[in-house]
Amino acid sequence: VVDRSNDVQHTQAHVTMSVNLPQHFKGTHMSRFIEVLNKHSKDMSVQALPTVLKELQEYLESESARIVLEFPYFVEKTAPVSGSKALMDYECSFTGEYDGKTSDIVIGVKVPVTSLCPCSKEISDYGAHNQRGIVDIKVRTLHDENEPPKLIWLEEIIQKAEDSASSPLYPLLKRTDERHVTMQAYDNPVFVEDLVRNVAMRLQNDERIKWFTAEVTNFESIHNHNAFALVEWTRP
Amino acid sequence: VVDRSNDVQHTQAHVTMSVNLPQHFKGTHMSRFIEVLNKHSKDMSVQALPTVLKELQEYLESESARIVLEFPYFVEKTAPVSGSKALMDYECSFTGEYDGKTSDIVIGVKVPVTSLCPCSKEISDYGAHNQRGIVDIKVRTLHDENEPPKLIWLEEIIQKAEDSASSPLYPLLKRTDERHVTMQAYDNPVFVEDLVRNVAMRLQNDERIKWFTAEVTNFESIHNHNAFALVEWTRP
Amino acid sequence: VVDRSNDVQHTQAHVTMSVNLPQHFKGTHMSRFIEVLNKHSKDMSVQALPTVLKELQEYLESESARIVLEFPYFVEKTAPVSGSKALMDYECSFTGEYDGKTSDIVIGVKVPVTSLCPCSKEISDYGAHNQRGIVDIKVRTLHDENEPPKLIWLEEIIQKAEDSASSPLYPLLKRTDERHVTMQAYDNPVFVEDLVRNVAMRLQNDERIKWFTAEVTNFESIHNHNAFALVEWTRP
Amino acid sequence: VVDRSNDVQHTQAHVTMSVNLPQHFKGTHMSRFIEVLNKHSKDMSVQALPTVLKELQEYLESESARIVLEFPYFVEKTAPVSGSKALMDYECSFTGEYDGKTSDIVIGVKVPVTSLCPCSKEISDYGAHNQRGIVDIKVRTLHDENEPPKLIWLEEIIQKAEDSASSPLYPLLKRTDERHVTMQAYDNPVFVEDLVRNVAMRLQNDERIKWFTAEVTNFESIHNHNAFALVEWTRP
Repeated sequence: VVDRSNDVQHTQAHVTMSVNLPQHFKGTHMSRFIEVLNKHSKDMSVQALPTVLKELQEYLESESARIVLEFPYFVEKTAPVSGSKALMDYECSFTGEYDGKTSDIVIGVKVPVTSLCPCSKEISDYGAHNQRGIVDIKVRTLHDENEPPKLIWLEEIIQKAEDSASSPLYPLLKRTDERHVTMQAYDNPVFVEDLVRNVAMRLQNDERIKWFTAEVTNFESIHNHNAFALVEWTRP
Repeated sequence: VVDRSNDVQHTQAHVTMSVNLPQHFKGTHMSRFIEVLNKHSKDMSVQALPTVLKELQEYLESESARIVLEFPYFVEKTAPVSGSKALMDYECSFTGEYDGKTSDIVIGVKVPVTSLCPCSKEISDYGAHNQRGIVDIKVRTLHDENEPPKLIWLEEIIQKAEDSASSPLYPLLKRTDERHVTMQAYDNPVFVEDLVRNVAMRLQNDERIKWFTAEVTNFESIHNHNAFALVEWTRP
Repeated sequence: VVDRSNDVQHTQAHVTMSVNLPQHFKGTHMSRFIEVLNKHSKDMSVQALPTVLKELQEYLESESARIVLEFPYFVEKTAPVSGSKALMDYECSFTGEYDGKTSDIVIGVKVPVTSLCPCSKEISDYGAHNQRGIVDIKVRTLHDENEPPKLIWLEEIIQKAEDSASSPLYPLLKRTDERHVTMQAYDNPVFVEDLVRNVAMRLQNDERIKWFTAEVTNFESIHNHNAFALVEWTRP
Repeated sequence: VVDRSNDVQHTQAHVTMSVNLPQHFKGTHMSRFIEVLNKHSKDMSVQALPTVLKELQEYLESESARIVLEFPYFVEKTAPVSGSKALMDYECSFTGEYDGKTSDIVIGVKVPVTSLCPCSKEISDYGAHNQRGIVDIKVRTLHDENEPPKLIWLEEIIQKAEDSASSPLYPLLKRTDERHVTMQAYDNPVFVEDLVRNVAMRLQNDERIKWFTAEVTNFESIHNHNAFALVEWTRP
């Protein structure tokens, strides 16, 4: 995968490949999936995906082809006060479909964040319950015919999710950072519904994006169940 | 399963059964495991387990037999201020081994709790990060020869875990309860090491318990990784 | 859950509940979900679900409500030759949506089966690779306005999946049964595409069903990857 | 990770790190774990692990330190007849402990294989049920004091597991390969107990190995439950 700062990042993906089977075909050629995958295993970037999809559709003599890549992606994060650096991993995905004419690519990122409950803060004399939450974003970008879809970095989507939460998560925090992050979360309380709305607003304001879903799940620290909220949107 | 308040609770278990195979045996009789399981599927309580183990060891002509039951267990919890009642589920397990003479039973419970970070509280002008954690307890009780092991209720182990945390979790909380729980957690900060020590102390003070492990995992709300601490102890 | 032979079966569900939030609402009342769930925890059958959905939609003052119940379901199976009986578990689900006027119910069952590869059988002098597969079926039944949806038993859907495979799975098989099952699978080879087509045909022939998806995943015994096939269908 | 054919293989690990906490210490320095991990993230090979462990133990001022790395590892496999090549992934692990004096390393590999049931083959006129199984091996190698433990390649352990089964799995098989593999499995039937014994024998015959556990789990193609067998052994 190409990333914004290091050019190329080696990663490993869980891959799902499928083709549409015309009714008069009895079955497909399973081993050809692996051949296509093996040939392209060194480059499965968003830019390369349309070529792989086209090859899959043609080699398997089908009407359409689909590939889902799920992979961890690492970004170096800098602690907010001490400036300590360490790697943080995000679960990402590329989903590509090709119908014989155009290819459709969906980019997905799961961003863990902190959310602090506004109600708990308001009704209590001190403290407020907070927890880890996951912001699960999937986007389609606009593209003119015969052109590749507009590029959006995974780092840009991650940023929108982290800016929408009470606080981002960090892999490495010193004491001064922990103080900063604790107070930042207390100063920015969000319900799960607020958080998903904040994310949705930021995605709508990005002119490159034509469709998205954003789902937030909070692993509530006072309950044994999770709270979640979901928005789906298509640019009018 | 027999519970403290309702006598009998219907549940479903994931079951692992095995026997020790003497060296001159080529294999065991797989279908007999299912026959024994099927015969006793209506009562697999701690009290019934020695009988099932003995039958398994004899019917499979082996030196020893082992059964692990993993099952959800429901307890009615009352909210601390409003008194609202609802069911909460705990992942529990019974592990039984029989060597042809005596049977050894280990009771396990996973109790989700709130933990609030003392360091975050101390260094910040306001707020403190907190999160859901899981207290995973396994105990062996004392028993005199030819007597059943001393009874300990799952509810008693759950209580020890909840009393050791910043706050218990609840299935149903009204606004007045949420205020109570938020402030209770802020008043009782515990590191993951404190929490596991509190649990260990309560288990050591229970004269019925002769061995335990207690492991706490915190799903840190400011980090993407978890923090854990583990204590194993045998009564001297 | 009501089952075909025993009237009532006690089970435990993983529950997901949600409501549609009108744009001018800031958030929803999380604790009310638990109150509704708690009130109806003793009966969440397909028949009861419309009532629970309506109550959820009204009590949460929303436009629509949705509940997903995922639960294990046990059926007594009889071995084909010896007649030995034992329980087998199936992962099932009820998904209900209510939009303020009508409720929509989807019934789901995951049925594990044996599939034996026709190609492997044909090209080899003896033997044929076979494996466990999962048939994941979701159905909507027809219903006239203001009437409950037509009843379909979970056992009936399970039967359609098992009849479509090389052989059903059994919890308990004696030697004579194992011989029968081995030869039955060898006599009925199916590719993953055949299996999903067989299931689709049986579902289309059931006049009560108006929509379904059927997905089969084979845990290939000669590969490290799985093979899958999917059909979605709506009655014209 | 260093591999036998390509020198260096980029991979990603799930990491668990812990230290023993002396009784008079209140807690440990969580952020230092991440600092150590971050510093060594480019090389966590078996050869480098003792250095990382020593640094962890010293930097965290503890009596002992422990690291578990779980990671996927890719090996190029050649189909038995056509010679087609493709990558196959294995779940591997390195577990290292350091007590202030010596470090103890356990190497783990999970190898998926085919097993074909001897009983089913014997009692049936044709066919035999077979399935995917997982051989989970953990080994400790001998080492003289103050010397690094004897090197054993992950590929060597994988080979022992595959040689013990009815047939290895392959990522890519052509028709001629599928015929070969089907008949090879039929010619080499093994019960789960045989398979684990075969593995144990091969591990005992390797003079470098001083301890191992081998556990085989078969995802039975005629049952809904799995069959497993386990051997633990220490060189006398």
